[in-house]
Amino acid sequence: MSAWGSVLITGCSRGIGLQLVKQLSESSSRPANIIATARNPAGSAALQELSRTCPGVHAVTLDVCSEQSIFSAVEEVQFIVGNQGLNCLINNAAVGSSSSINSVTREAMMRAFQVNSVAPLFVTKAFLPLLQTAAARSTGMGVHRAAVVNISSILGSISLNCGDSATFKSYAYGTSKAALNMVSRCLAADLGPVGILCVSLHPGWVKTDMGGPHADLTVEESVSEILSTLVSFTEQDHGGFKDYRGQTLPW
Amino acid sequence: MSAWGSVLITGCSRGIGLQLVKQLSESSSRPANIIATARNPAGSAALQELSRTCPGVHAVTLDVCSEQSIFSAVEEVQFIVGNQGLNCLINNAAVGSSSSINSVTREAMMRAFQVNSVAPLFVTKAFLPLLQTAAARSTGMGVHRAAVVNISSILGSISLNCGDSATFKSYAYGTSKAALNMVSRCLAADLGPVGILCVSLHPGWVKTDMGGPHADLTVEESVSEILSTLVSFTEQDHGGFKDYRGQTLPW
Repeated sequence: MSAWGSVLITGCSRGIGLQLVKQLSESSSRPANIIATARNPAGSAALQELSRTCPGVHAVTLDVCSEQSIFSAVEEVQFIVGNQGLNCLINNAAVGSSSSINSVTREAMMRAFQVNSVAPLFVTKAFLPLLQTAAARSTGMGVHRAAVVNISSILGSISLNCGDSATFKSYAYGTSKAALNMVSRCLAADLGPVGILCVSLHPGWVKTDMGGPHADLTVEESVSEILSTLVSFTEQDHGGFKDYRGQTLPW
Repeated sequence: MSAWGSVLITGCSRGIGLQLVKQLSESSSRPANIIATARNPAGSAALQELSRTCPGVHAVTLDVCSEQSIFSAVEEVQFIVGNQGLNCLINNAAVGSSSSINSVTREAMMRAFQVNSVAPLFVTKAFLPLLQTAAARSTGMGVHRAAVVNISSILGSISLNCGDSATFKSYAYGTSKAALNMVSRCLAADLGPVGILCVSLHPGWVKTDMGGPHADLTVEESVSEILSTLVSFTEQDHGGFKDYRGQTLPW
């Protein structure tokens, strides 16, 4: 039996989101439903290919900044998962680039907050009834029951942003990920009592369009570790900030 | 001789900002210039009274969300401080109210980020030349030389937002203050090398329009402690998150 029931991932047109869909669909413990959302799924040939060839992969349109789009996606997902509910929501969609004290703009800051901090909260709120349905059908805490996983970044660690670690400048991105970590923590306080695990997860520095070619990890390596780590999460990890290997990071 | 040269405070029409101006102007070590800014200084009778009766208090118009307003304020402040520069910038202007998972809106989140997280960064950037002028004229670290003090909140502590401490729900406000703490930390990394101290400061839970009547501290008590704490800051406090008594808070 699979550890996973139904999983929904945002931002699946490329990068870590796309690879999560790919590796989950190839896994021996493949989820019953892998709901791969993107602002424009038709624009990603790779996502189209996966949804055509892999059983259980559903490409669904979801613009995380649009309440109307979220509303439509919830209806579609409700139809897919039925009375089993949704077991795991992975808020992965994000924007980012480096920005220094000189180059950062108000617009870049606000856009980062909108997509990286605010949208995950409102996507979670919209899918909450489906997560609660899944939570009510099981016990314990983890992705087998119900979980919200916010893909954060070590660049959002306020503690670590000093000394040599502060060399890489990411005013807009890092600040939005610190805010996302607070969102995770607020959600953990509110959703823990109904059995929904909430965590922030740093995927590592990954060779994607966002991470660039000099990153530490291939997207395959990162996603392999992330999937093992997600399955290992228990009550102990609730409300935490973890990296792809499951190590705790400081806020 | 005063520990302070010239101090600028945002959000002085009422609350903690207004009281900082009042107690600084009454202090035996009164700063040479107390630049009390507000979006609409003419709308605050108390601020008008202080600027009319207290020597060294200058009421200056500054809307922290408007680059044009900031630009005009910098010109006015440049004229006031001359070649001495600006020794201390206190980013105090903020918006806030409680918000739960059910009541929070995207608009409330974005407004909190705009005023509480983004504006302090761009006000600091605009006044940086004046802070650098002051920093170049002295040594050591502290308000006697050059400092950026971001008025944050214990509600922005990600670490403390769990268990009983997570009972008070402030999704928008708390998240924006966590983001502000990251801004303080980014600024600390960039401005430390030029001798500008940067800190986040929690003023306590204060009986103001924002804090409400059931708060722990009167605004006089909070501001007395804040002023003692600000004067005590040294290199040791740079990049830190402190409360009004100077105690370190976890991020």
